Amino acid sequence: MTEPTLRCAECTISLCADMTTLTCLDCESPLEVDYPGHDYVSGRPPMPVPSQYLESATLGEGNTPIVDLPAFASRLGIRSLNAKLEYINPTGSFKDRGTAVVIAAAKQHGVSEVVEDSSGNAGASVSAYAARAGMKAHIFAPSSAPQGKLRQIVAYGAQVHSIPGPREATTAAAVEYATEHSLVYASHVLSPYFVEGTKLFAYEIFHQSGETMPKHIVMPVGNGSLLLGALKGFAELKRGGHIADIPRLHAVQAKSVMPIVAAFLGLDDEPPVETTVAGGIAVGTPARLEEIVTAIKTTDGTATAVEENDILSWRDTLAHTEGIYGEPTSAAAFAGLAQLVQQGIIQPNERVLVPITGFGLKDAG
Amino acid sequence: MTEPTLRCAECTISLCADMTTLTCLDCESPLEVDYPGHDYVSGRPPMPVPSQYLESATLGEGNTPIVDLPAFASRLGIRSLNAKLEYINPTGSFKDRGTAVVIAAAKQHGVSEVVEDSSGNAGASVSAYAARAGMKAHIFAPSSAPQGKLRQIVAYGAQVHSIPGPREATTAAAVEYATEHSLVYASHVLSPYFVEGTKLFAYEIFHQSGETMPKHIVMPVGNGSLLLGALKGFAELKRGGHIADIPRLHAVQAKSVMPIVAAFLGLDDEPPVETTVAGGIAVGTPARLEEIVTAIKTTDGTATAVEENDILSWRDTLAHTEGIYGEPTSAAAFAGLAQLVQQGIIQPNERVLVPITGFGLKDAG
Repeated sequence: MTEPTLRCAECTISLCADMTTLTCLDCESPLEVDYPGHDYVSGRPPMPVPSQYLESATLGEGNTPIVDLPAFASRLGIRSLNAKLEYINPTGSFKDRGTAVVIAAAKQHGVSEVVEDSSGNAGASVSAYAARAGMKAHIFAPSSAPQGKLRQIVAYGAQVHSIPGPREATTAAAVEYATEHSLVYASHVLSPYFVEGTKLFAYEIFHQSGETMPKHIVMPVGNGSLLLGALKGFAELKRGGHIADIPRLHAVQAKSVMPIVAAFLGLDDEPPVETTVAGGIAVGTPARLEEIVTAIKTTDGTATAVEENDILSWRDTLAHTEGIYGEPTSAAAFAGLAQLVQQGIIQPNERVLVPITGFGLKDAG
Repeated sequence: MTEPTLRCAECTISLCADMTTLTCLDCESPLEVDYPGHDYVSGRPPMPVPSQYLESATLGEGNTPIVDLPAFASRLGIRSLNAKLEYINPTGSFKDRGTAVVIAAAKQHGVSEVVEDSSGNAGASVSAYAARAGMKAHIFAPSSAPQGKLRQIVAYGAQVHSIPGPREATTAAAVEYATEHSLVYASHVLSPYFVEGTKLFAYEIFHQSGETMPKHIVMPVGNGSLLLGALKGFAELKRGGHIADIPRLHAVQAKSVMPIVAAFLGLDDEPPVETTVAGGIAVGTPARLEEIVTAIKTTDGTATAVEENDILSWRDTLAHTEGIYGEPTSAAAFAGLAQLVQQGIIQPNERVLVPITGFGLKDAG
């Protein structure tokens, strides 16, 4: 196998792998890692970073359990419903999969300081993995972010930069700081390495499921880092001849912040950007919006939006009946799943999997 | 193999396995599960509950990662230090291993309501597994317990009974309530099934370590449920011929609550029972005190007590340098480890493993 490269998905320009190029130098589209000449036949995921860097960066992320949700399946009137407990990860969310690869790549490239913008799961995850790698982490967060959400970030010793104004101002400040100080912007949204970590979600589902692969995966989507990773993983498995079909990937958003649903449905009106209890998907202007919509359509998936009170009600029911305490963001997926079953998009006899993306301890909603 | 029985460790009386007998009918010593005729040769743990009950109770607990702590090893002047991240469990602590087996056994015996006393990790764990099994959980907690600690218990829908007075009053109230209402007291301290879950900690260390088994395991000890489980697991592995020696098990307590250290050292003075930031080991009168001290001595281990400020300082250093955010209780083990290295009880070239027993998110200390 030749060296992995970074490839623009739009204009297919290829670049040498580095840490600072996040978008195509020509068309500004996001980049993805390409493995020229790799045949994907082994069923093992090719990775963009040599194993010694992955081994030194790891905190034991991934290998999350898949459990049955019999009470929910019966409540929803479907035969088989599984949850993949992505919150059982070192910092309590699925983000650790992506961060581990981003920080391993940063280590390979001799990086000593990284910049990230997030007051939530991604901020905590980057702070933890940077600490372990001996890197300084600068975490940019809106000044309106509750102290409780920042506590975990502070615990890992990251430097928090508090930015007034809307969420977009925080991203702009992070980018500006990284540029000004020649630091690496370890964006969980744009880094092509992040998706190389979240693609392992798909590989694990394949290896854990055997003959019982899910037909549908229903997930909360904000910036799309899990959805895009899942698609990349399943696409690699398909290319290697391991699966015939990619599961249908369905995106769930809150009605109060639903740019992906609006774009997917081709709504003319600008969707509202209000507050939501589902902090992990409160993303008004996702940087990879077009890519996400294309990904959903590629898998014959859908996008649907749910009410705030449904999110909280499913969160409580999940804890009370299945013993799983997820973030409101995670519970949104079940509210969406109920709609998809009702609409006949998911049939009663089809297998469904839902990731529980974040621990309820992190965000009581 | 014949059916598992409950056996008194002291007078070796054997009883049929049930859910209500927690101590020997004759001498009142705690019971343990015995597997008459089992030879332990396969290296797979015998379990006291048929697999279909374990499978329906599980939330994917166990199979926790072991990671290197190179920064800490160098700081402590030892060659190899590993952490087993026991907080990466469904409710965020090692307790899930034991609870899964207790609740599976309860399910096998047709139990519909359970009683437990704990405002911390055990309370949250029992609440979650009971919810999943469709059982009602009554959690008894001191009325002085902070609301934050009870939040996770409440999230799973358990009924919290708030008891004024000292910690012992809470246990007494739980026992009384269980007796009065003919309910099962699913005690993480006394149930012989709990230890059958935590023994898997030892089996995993064996299977994950291969040729690099730790010589020492240093752990925070309050009621001893992890230590007693670890010893049972290693003893079974030794009996099956899989290991020649059981790792030396060292118990760490806070100086302000150190009954085990006092008993181990044979101190004449009654040890003080004050407050400690390490809530998981704030146990003034452990029900299995003698058993714990014997277990430590059996493995040629030691017991040592640490200062409050050392606990918090190691907690912060663990997060800042290794990216692992543990409860203060977990950090106490490192303060103890530093003492054992300084005292020459642990030699620089010996392998050491420390469990990170609970997630820092659960108890900021």
